[in-house]
Amino acid sequence: MSNKYVYLFEEGTGNMREILGGKGANLAEMTSLGMPVPPGFTVSTDACTRYYDDGERIDKEIEAEIFEYLSKLEKITGKKLGDGTAPLLVSVRSGARVSMPGMMDTILNLGINDTVAGAMIQLTGAPRFVYDSYRRFIQMYSDVVTGLPKSNFESYIAMVKDRRGVTNDSELTADDMKELVSLFKDFYSGNTRNTFPDDPKEQLIESVKAVFRSWNNPRAIAYRRMNDIPSYWGTAVTVQSMVFGNMGDDSGTGVAFTRDPATGEKRLYGEFLMNAQGEDVVAGIRTPQTIDQLKTISPEVYKEFAATAAKLELHYKDMQDMEFTIERGKFYMLQTRNGKRTAPAALKVAVDLVGEGMCTKQEALLKIEPKQLDSLIHPGFDPVALKKSIPAATGLAASPGAACGAVYFNPDDAKRAAKNGPVVLVRSETSPEDIEGMAAAEGILTATGGRTSHAAVVARGMGICCVVGCSALRINKTERSMTVGNQKVMQGEFISLDGSTGNVYIGSIPTVEAVVGGYFATIMEWADEIRALRVRTNADTPRDAATALKFGAEGIGLTRTEHMFFDADRIPVMREMIISENTEQRQRALEKLLSMQRSDFEGIFRVMQGRPVTIRLLDPPLHEFLPTADDDIADLADEMGVSFKRLKSTVRSLHEANPMMGYRGCRLSVTYPEIAMMQARAIIEAAISVKRETNCDIIPEIMIPLVCEARELKYVADTVREVADIVIKDSKTQLKYLVGTMIEVPRAALTADEIAKEAEFFSFGTNDLSQLTYAFSRDDSGKFLPYYFEKNLFENDPFEHLDQKGVGKLMDIACKLARMTRSDIHLGICGESGGDPVSIEFCHRIGLSYVSCSPYRVPIARLAAAQSQIKYGTFKAHLYDRNLL
Amino acid sequence: MSNKYVYLFEEGTGNMREILGGKGANLAEMTSLGMPVPPGFTVSTDACTRYYDDGERIDKEIEAEIFEYLSKLEKITGKKLGDGTAPLLVSVRSGARVSMPGMMDTILNLGINDTVAGAMIQLTGAPRFVYDSYRRFIQMYSDVVTGLPKSNFESYIAMVKDRRGVTNDSELTADDMKELVSLFKDFYSGNTRNTFPDDPKEQLIESVKAVFRSWNNPRAIAYRRMNDIPSYWGTAVTVQSMVFGNMGDDSGTGVAFTRDPATGEKRLYGEFLMNAQGEDVVAGIRTPQTIDQLKTISPEVYKEFAATAAKLELHYKDMQDMEFTIERGKFYMLQTRNGKRTAPAALKVAVDLVGEGMCTKQEALLKIEPKQLDSLIHPGFDPVALKKSIPAATGLAASPGAACGAVYFNPDDAKRAAKNGPVVLVRSETSPEDIEGMAAAEGILTATGGRTSHAAVVARGMGICCVVGCSALRINKTERSMTVGNQKVMQGEFISLDGSTGNVYIGSIPTVEAVVGGYFATIMEWADEIRALRVRTNADTPRDAATALKFGAEGIGLTRTEHMFFDADRIPVMREMIISENTEQRQRALEKLLSMQRSDFEGIFRVMQGRPVTIRLLDPPLHEFLPTADDDIADLADEMGVSFKRLKSTVRSLHEANPMMGYRGCRLSVTYPEIAMMQARAIIEAAISVKRETNCDIIPEIMIPLVCEARELKYVADTVREVADIVIKDSKTQLKYLVGTMIEVPRAALTADEIAKEAEFFSFGTNDLSQLTYAFSRDDSGKFLPYYFEKNLFENDPFEHLDQKGVGKLMDIACKLARMTRSDIHLGICGESGGDPVSIEFCHRIGLSYVSCSPYRVPIARLAAAQSQIKYGTFKAHLYDRNLL
Repeated sequence: MSNKYVYLFEEGTGNMREILGGKGANLAEMTSLGMPVPPGFTVSTDACTRYYDDGERIDKEIEAEIFEYLSKLEKITGKKLGDGTAPLLVSVRSGARVSMPGMMDTILNLGINDTVAGAMIQLTGAPRFVYDSYRRFIQMYSDVVTGLPKSNFESYIAMVKDRRGVTNDSELTADDMKELVSLFKDFYSGNTRNTFPDDPKEQLIESVKAVFRSWNNPRAIAYRRMNDIPSYWGTAVTVQSMVFGNMGDDSGTGVAFTRDPATGEKRLYGEFLMNAQGEDVVAGIRTPQTIDQLKTISPEVYKEFAATAAKLELHYKDMQDMEFTIERGKFYMLQTRNGKRTAPAALKVAVDLVGEGMCTKQEALLKIEPKQLDSLIHPGFDPVALKKSIPAATGLAASPGAACGAVYFNPDDAKRAAKNGPVVLVRSETSPEDIEGMAAAEGILTATGGRTSHAAVVARGMGICCVVGCSALRINKTERSMTVGNQKVMQGEFISLDGSTGNVYIGSIPTVEAVVGGYFATIMEWADEIRALRVRTNADTPRDAATALKFGAEGIGLTRTEHMFFDADRIPVMREMIISENTEQRQRALEKLLSMQRSDFEGIFRVMQGRPVTIRLLDPPLHEFLPTADDDIADLADEMGVSFKRLKSTVRSLHEANPMMGYRGCRLSVTYPEIAMMQARAIIEAAISVKRETNCDIIPEIMIPLVCEARELKYVADTVREVADIVIKDSKTQLKYLVGTMIEVPRAALTADEIAKEAEFFSFGTNDLSQLTYAFSRDDSGKFLPYYFEKNLFENDPFEHLDQKGVGKLMDIACKLARMTRSDIHLGICGESGGDPVSIEFCHRIGLSYVSCSPYRVPIARLAAAQSQIKYGTFKAHLYDRNLL
Repeated sequence: MSNKYVYLFEEGTGNMREILGGKGANLAEMTSLGMPVPPGFTVSTDACTRYYDDGERIDKEIEAEIFEYLSKLEKITGKKLGDGTAPLLVSVRSGARVSMPGMMDTILNLGINDTVAGAMIQLTGAPRFVYDSYRRFIQMYSDVVTGLPKSNFESYIAMVKDRRGVTNDSELTADDMKELVSLFKDFYSGNTRNTFPDDPKEQLIESVKAVFRSWNNPRAIAYRRMNDIPSYWGTAVTVQSMVFGNMGDDSGTGVAFTRDPATGEKRLYGEFLMNAQGEDVVAGIRTPQTIDQLKTISPEVYKEFAATAAKLELHYKDMQDMEFTIERGKFYMLQTRNGKRTAPAALKVAVDLVGEGMCTKQEALLKIEPKQLDSLIHPGFDPVALKKSIPAATGLAASPGAACGAVYFNPDDAKRAAKNGPVVLVRSETSPEDIEGMAAAEGILTATGGRTSHAAVVARGMGICCVVGCSALRINKTERSMTVGNQKVMQGEFISLDGSTGNVYIGSIPTVEAVVGGYFATIMEWADEIRALRVRTNADTPRDAATALKFGAEGIGLTRTEHMFFDADRIPVMREMIISENTEQRQRALEKLLSMQRSDFEGIFRVMQGRPVTIRLLDPPLHEFLPTADDDIADLADEMGVSFKRLKSTVRSLHEANPMMGYRGCRLSVTYPEIAMMQARAIIEAAISVKRETNCDIIPEIMIPLVCEARELKYVADTVREVADIVIKDSKTQLKYLVGTMIEVPRAALTADEIAKEAEFFSFGTNDLSQLTYAFSRDDSGKFLPYYFEKNLFENDPFEHLDQKGVGKLMDIACKLARMTRSDIHLGICGESGGDPVSIEFCHRIGLSYVSCSPYRVPIARLAAAQSQIKYGTFKAHLYDRNLL
């Protein structure tokens, strides 16, 4: 960490986002490109880290440096903070390495007090503007620095409007605004027992602190968790001289993209409001004009903006999301960043940029967030049903896709209800606090706001269907209902949203599979050309396998055989096997299961046409196949023709204190080898029969679960191989097969050199491996994990993203040890994190051969695999000093 | 592995026990010392390993090498295997690196067939001897090679004796023996469908194979598991030309020690039988004469034996256990090895050897098996009660100590019953098959056999009280009872054994603590001088702490605070806390617990007088404090004055699928910091008050359990430190305290570098760490572990001995990572393996600072720690390449 904590825009570059944050770095870059950026400086992320290290206080040394740079800024602008003649006003904004829109705090108009207000009236002759700015500052400062709720201030405004008999803020006079300033200050001192700070330097330091603090506010923590942003990064703070979009009708402010963020079409796309400050546009309170209308209103400004936009896109080689302000006719750039976009737009932009010669395929692929593909491959509305449906209302199409779910009116309810079924979150407008409820919803509907409002931006980022600005919508919070026209929908009733048209329907509309072609196909093709990591799927049925194939799966990484046993026609036979009192009875039941399993496997082999198929032997504890309640046991006993007592005693004998760590996996095969033998026979017989039938070269991979010791694996593997070899010999055909194991027990990873002697392949079962490495029972961790997130003790749910530090270290150790024994060992992953882009990157880096994920995640995995290759190059296995492992 | 698999005795030395086994190496050494050893050769342990690697067959090349050495032996002896004039007879014996008495198989008199028998009669003129040898060979060969039960042969002998109207074997004539040979051969061919092999070379190869096979017989596997002998060692096979102790009254055989194995007294101690083979002495069928009587019977031989014994003891610097044979007046040494001895003998011999200048303190300490100390420090009979008790019978005092337990007559019953209480195993005589039942028993009583019989040797080795040769004893197996004189004892009734006097009492006699002084104190003093590893104790009460101090504990490594909460007067308050509906109610309950905990800790600090005391914060899941059955819940609800519904709902909400990996340990402190705060306050207040009272410098060590992530630890540690600092400040005294953590979750070990930032000490909780590393729930593993032992998939119960390969690797990684962050971090272990000598050795090697074990294991740990220091020297921490961890 350097000793420099503050940088003028002139001192920075676009590469310094780690120190300056995205916003600071881009402002520095635009400054160096000679664009009209109001001058300012950035307090670095290092200062934020110091702030936390020092126990949430700003060191004197850093404070001095901030004031030193303030002086420099004053010199550049020729204005002075708190000055009675040429006062400087600044904005104070957060800026992390990556954009976290709306998650942290911003304060505008800082530096204002009674003296400054007087001077500003002198300078502008616009007392209403000055007092409007003043009251906005008090409002923001009170909210951000002291946490006084915004709504209290809003109720004062409502009170004054009421008294004056007007409905819009714009109808309030300078005197009204002045009165509000005074009311706000009284409210502030009444609630904080301090007078509102008049000293602009105090305002500045307190605001910087508040922005640092906002790095750890609950919504920022939630956002980081959802977007894999580490908490140690911290935020920078950008202090910039104010320009005012609300200085009259020749002023304004706007937000625009260089391409349409919904479709990717190449055209300026955005909105602006004249005589307004930035917050007015994004907050979605007034409905803005489209950027095209600026051409008419101020052709000069439009030209300058369009030129700047084009220059920035070329410079950053990506679609830009820009913020500008017009102060009395003069154009200023306040921000630029790579724009968030919908999945279809992301694909089109990427392909277009390559077509336009602006970037390479590799660069283009890196611009697509793999998770976004999710929205493309999920079902849309059935066109026939859609045709027959009449929209109840239409809003702005803010994020494409089709959503159908039960209506909820607050994010907490939505989050809770989402556990039981699809949910649509309906709000007047969303705010950053809603983030978790939004993430849980299938769709989001708001009554106000434009396409760049919070709801729209966030929903697009998440690939969630979203309709905004649906003005026909009325929400009754008390009754928990909404009305559209004369139709009333109660909480829990279904509506359907079309994010591509903005249509809102009462009731549910059936959906159909997405068609994936065009840009999608091009991107997937490029990804496949580039990636080294293979992508398989977890599939238990021919149907799953077929879906995955359609999405480009190259094989099956996990077929769970037990799911087949839970079928209504299978479970009685399985139970018969479990309550067998001797090997003979068990053999009889297994005989029946054999033919069922064989046909299961035939179905899967047939679909996969010779692609690799990994089949895992029976894994769950046997008690999962039996009921636990006495009544159910009695019913089943009747059904099976055994005594209640006997069945109850079997249930009791199978009961376990900690089933996750109990009598399951290969432990079943050690005690009842006949189960493994039956399954091996079914697999090999099915492979032989489908090979004969289709002439495909089928090489089944038989996977032994829950291994913790090499000898245990050898015992089961020998059993499997013995049966397999006999079946092959008897069939008088040739068949290659592999026997391998899941690495899901820490000890298996730690002794992977020995395990690899017996296993021809490894597949990391990161679900169980994570449970055991953390000592987290997934069934129980719900009781305490929320506290951990709340207290910022965990950034991620370890079951969602592979924990690279702990679980990943075990995997890395296992890979290294395994290669010492068997340098060409085939290594894969079949836990849920196999479909998570961050985890896939890790898998590439430790040299796995493939990832296996659910069918709908296959395209995501293909792209993530390509991105890993682009970022990290080809994995090279080294030999390691064994003593250190 | 070399290509040489066979060694003449002349080719070997005493250092080659890895290749030749203990027996082979010692025979080689005695040969090189010029002692009268019958010539022979040894087939190496490598050959055994090859035998198993090759799929349980002897490679042609190795077979050829065996025959080549057989030729050499024939040349040396001037005899020939199977020869009609000068026949060579050999013994074939097993011999592992360390002695495993009676666990594997032996065949004597090999080479005999009808031709050879004829030649032997010619040579010896002793047809009875020849046929006796012949029938013994058939008997042993049939048992060892083909597994025909010995008892069948014994019943033929009984039949012939019956017919002849005699009672002793010795009364059978040459013709009787000849008849037995013929009966035995018929029985053999009838049962194996093969004629008994006449070809001595076939006999030899089959016998070698059988000895190799016996390495993996169940009792050998069980013995290895109990004695930490790895299965990959394999056994060597020694083939030695026979000498005969049963060639008449000038022949004999004996077993003797250079010192009394029960007391350690320096004198020849042993037994012999004239006109007998070795098996007759050890089998305990005939009652032998003491070695002193040999002086009278054969003064020349006695002199030669005594001289040899003295020479061997000096040579090996240890008490020897020797086997000799006299063949027609000529003395031969058949075996020597370091003698097994009782714990008191082990101490006396060690101290005496140093006193006699025969070895150093270090060498002496290595001669004591730490586990043996166990028998010394456990209670003996209360002398007053003993005085009033009248022995029902007296046998030979074979292994000292006092035992009192329920009588069982077969080893399986004993093993089962031992789970519920102390057991005494009563047998006519024991055999190697009984090993597990013997290990489970508190005491062993046999009706026949001498002090060198199987029961006596094994019991001494295990430190189990044993009385043998109790001729007054009659066992009725059918009725499951025993009678001593006119007193009858049924299975399950209690008897008491005094292993130092041989007295047997009906009923139970109260016991008292052992007094540990004399040799014990000297050995402990030496151990303490030498060892680097500190020894602490796990103690939850002042009483435990006081016991441990008496045994030399240097501190407390683990105080489990929850045990205190289970007390009858505490649990209601604990329950009150658990069902609290808000922080206030909880605080009220915690207030009450505070004063209870404070006085608990005061008691412990007072006893420990300033020695370190580690106290672990609350660990178990809260549901452990509540009942689960509806009836119990209803009762408790009444008692607590709450509704059944409410209490039931609390119980239900606390229920967990896998409590071992659930809501416990520091997770409780994260959600309810007030619990940790209460405990921290109680610890610090207690420390301050006892410090004031006693003037001892008390430094409490507060240990946070179940940590898996550094930030979680920091959160709880900060909470603890905050309270502690306030309490100290308020008290206006000085108090140092440490905050550390248990390393019991794999992820904590894997991220130990980060954890160490927040922890001033680590204590490895190997119980939970092993469960998680293996995915073994200790509560459930009983269902499948027996199969694992039976199938030789696990050698050890991972909860008994620390698994060095997996769990140990995690510990090693954790130590290395922790030292990178905090080079002087204090590292300890408090799991059960902290009292296990093999595990202690591992702890020394990875550089732990201390081990903590139960009070009664403290002396064992002190000795084991010293032995580790002697074997491995001082641990040196290195810095490791971080990338590889």
